Amino acid sequence: MDRRSFLAASAAVLTAAAVPWSHSLARESLPLLRLNANENPLGMSPMARAAAADALAEGHRYSFGVEGMLAQEIAEREGVDKENVTIANGSTGILEAVVWQQAMRGATLVQPQITFGAVGEIAAAAQLKRVDVPMLDGFRVDLEAMEAATAKIDGPVLVYLVTPNNPTGLLTPSAAIEAWVRRAPDNVFFLIDEAYHELVDDPAYRSSVDLVRTERENVLIARTFSKIYAMAGMRLGYAMAAAPVVEALQKYYSSWSVNIVAMQAGRASLRDAEFRALSFNSNRAARDFTQQGLDDLGLDFIPSQGNFLIHEIRMPLKNYQQKMREAGILVGRDMDLGEGWNRLSIGTPDEMKRFMTTLGSLHAGGWS
Amino acid sequence: MDRRSFLAASAAVLTAAAVPWSHSLARESLPLLRLNANENPLGMSPMARAAAADALAEGHRYSFGVEGMLAQEIAEREGVDKENVTIANGSTGILEAVVWQQAMRGATLVQPQITFGAVGEIAAAAQLKRVDVPMLDGFRVDLEAMEAATAKIDGPVLVYLVTPNNPTGLLTPSAAIEAWVRRAPDNVFFLIDEAYHELVDDPAYRSSVDLVRTERENVLIARTFSKIYAMAGMRLGYAMAAAPVVEALQKYYSSWSVNIVAMQAGRASLRDAEFRALSFNSNRAARDFTQQGLDDLGLDFIPSQGNFLIHEIRMPLKNYQQKMREAGILVGRDMDLGEGWNRLSIGTPDEMKRFMTTLGSLHAGGWS
Repeated sequence: MDRRSFLAASAAVLTAAAVPWSHSLARESLPLLRLNANENPLGMSPMARAAAADALAEGHRYSFGVEGMLAQEIAEREGVDKENVTIANGSTGILEAVVWQQAMRGATLVQPQITFGAVGEIAAAAQLKRVDVPMLDGFRVDLEAMEAATAKIDGPVLVYLVTPNNPTGLLTPSAAIEAWVRRAPDNVFFLIDEAYHELVDDPAYRSSVDLVRTERENVLIARTFSKIYAMAGMRLGYAMAAAPVVEALQKYYSSWSVNIVAMQAGRASLRDAEFRALSFNSNRAARDFTQQGLDDLGLDFIPSQGNFLIHEIRMPLKNYQQKMREAGILVGRDMDLGEGWNRLSIGTPDEMKRFMTTLGSLHAGGWS
Repeated sequence: MDRRSFLAASAAVLTAAAVPWSHSLARESLPLLRLNANENPLGMSPMARAAAADALAEGHRYSFGVEGMLAQEIAEREGVDKENVTIANGSTGILEAVVWQQAMRGATLVQPQITFGAVGEIAAAAQLKRVDVPMLDGFRVDLEAMEAATAKIDGPVLVYLVTPNNPTGLLTPSAAIEAWVRRAPDNVFFLIDEAYHELVDDPAYRSSVDLVRTERENVLIARTFSKIYAMAGMRLGYAMAAAPVVEALQKYYSSWSVNIVAMQAGRASLRDAEFRALSFNSNRAARDFTQQGLDDLGLDFIPSQGNFLIHEIRMPLKNYQQKMREAGILVGRDMDLGEGWNRLSIGTPDEMKRFMTTLGSLHAGGWS
């Protein structure tokens, strides 16, 4: 199921379920758990909410200058220059702009077979040729096979890499990515999606932003405020790239057309170190708890570096979704993972206790 | 000056001017007047602000279902079906998506020489061929010449029409537009931008939405919440078109990727008939007052149907901008109107009194 269809289906589920759930939930005082969309369950930081509320007084004004201030503040935080940063309507706005730009060059998209779907969807509309490179065992990205695939392509190539990858939660080794970017021929451009960057706790990981600091012109890093900053509904993302790359990209989308409330919330979020720590720690604790619980049940899973993980289920996905939905928990989505796997989004530790209790009951009942 | 350059320059002006203005304004208690960006000076409706403030609690959630509710409510208001409506990140989001879709068909853009610049800018990136059709006397759109121009083009054509047109404020006759759309050959697609639709008071005007109600598949109407609803910084727009046109367009942009706060503010705005009337009446009163004032000074102007108008100035635009800026009023922008004209955005009646007093002084001083 592609991203658009999933969103439409989710809307239908939420609407259809509203009445029966509101009754049963009122009885049980259990809120609906949304563990299917990699959202941050904490809600926006108090500082971000306050800044957003203030910004509503300016909702009638075009956001002259605000994106420049946000870009400057991101640049300071990331150790790049303001000219290396461009703001967008979610990181999706960045992904789309890169795809259109590459479409105008006649590029071929090379990406792992299992990854975030937005680039593939817009690439279909933009008529990019496309090579999906099969995964290694354990859902790992096969960087060598990707490089070999690009070598076979005449003309421009767009390589899309998400790390940690979605839906697997696995890192692709930073050093290997950087080495490839540095040795790649001129026809290859890298779009590196670091949506989950701030949630990683593996000490071997580092962002590819060093490539931007050294002004490589064949790479762009996409980031989002949706995850660590809990702003998925606010639609705020950004890219970092060499200044000429940023300047060229801005011709392909309206970088001035970003919601002023989102940008003020984003600026406040950058200043809120306490919330960032809370967000990181809550996710890690809930993820650790969930992984331990899956282990205790003897269910296979892939240790994750994001706010989600994939794990074994012992019934068809549709039945599993239905069972969980009856308990007020939204899970699951067809991710091309193959039969017997599901991607689970990580809620708060308390929410994951509720999930594990429900999963434990299902497991004890023999998945029937 | 294109839209992007203008926005960058405006940001620079606002930043550069912040210190001296804040001093002089504190002395005089005069706020900075922004009469250069066709914003609605009233600020968002109280109902919209309240809905937006409430929505901040959901800022961490993807907006599953909210765009569907907004589309339904727009459809009810406009007498079309929900399937005829698609939501976007500002009407700019719609304009961009249409241009990319047409680029994939290899279309040529045909538009009036003087019109809103966003389509032309993205069309340049999308490598559309382009025909700018000269205006008739008095800055009127030459529909006949546009039709003749399209007839000379082999292959797909995208016709862009803004009515009332920006920056002129002039309507293009509704009946003439509709007749052309109905008789146009299959290779011509019409993008009709009705950004200022709700501000029109000419009884001869009607929206082209009737073409959607009759399921014409060669036309799309773009609308925005930026103007009548005072939501320019919130980035909320929509399109209305035949259901297959909407479905096809949604492949070219992420219709699910719209800020949830903006959408809830938009939903509340649709319900706030009182604010809509206030907004309409305030703009009309301020526009009438301004037109009368210009007449009294003997300065030529084009009677407008938008929240802006173009009028005669008797010094070079840059000098005029500077003079007004010294009085704390932002005006002006290079609009290809030719020497001696400026587009003025309409503020509140009180703001326009201040503007006219300043303009009157400049006029009395012989524009020196």
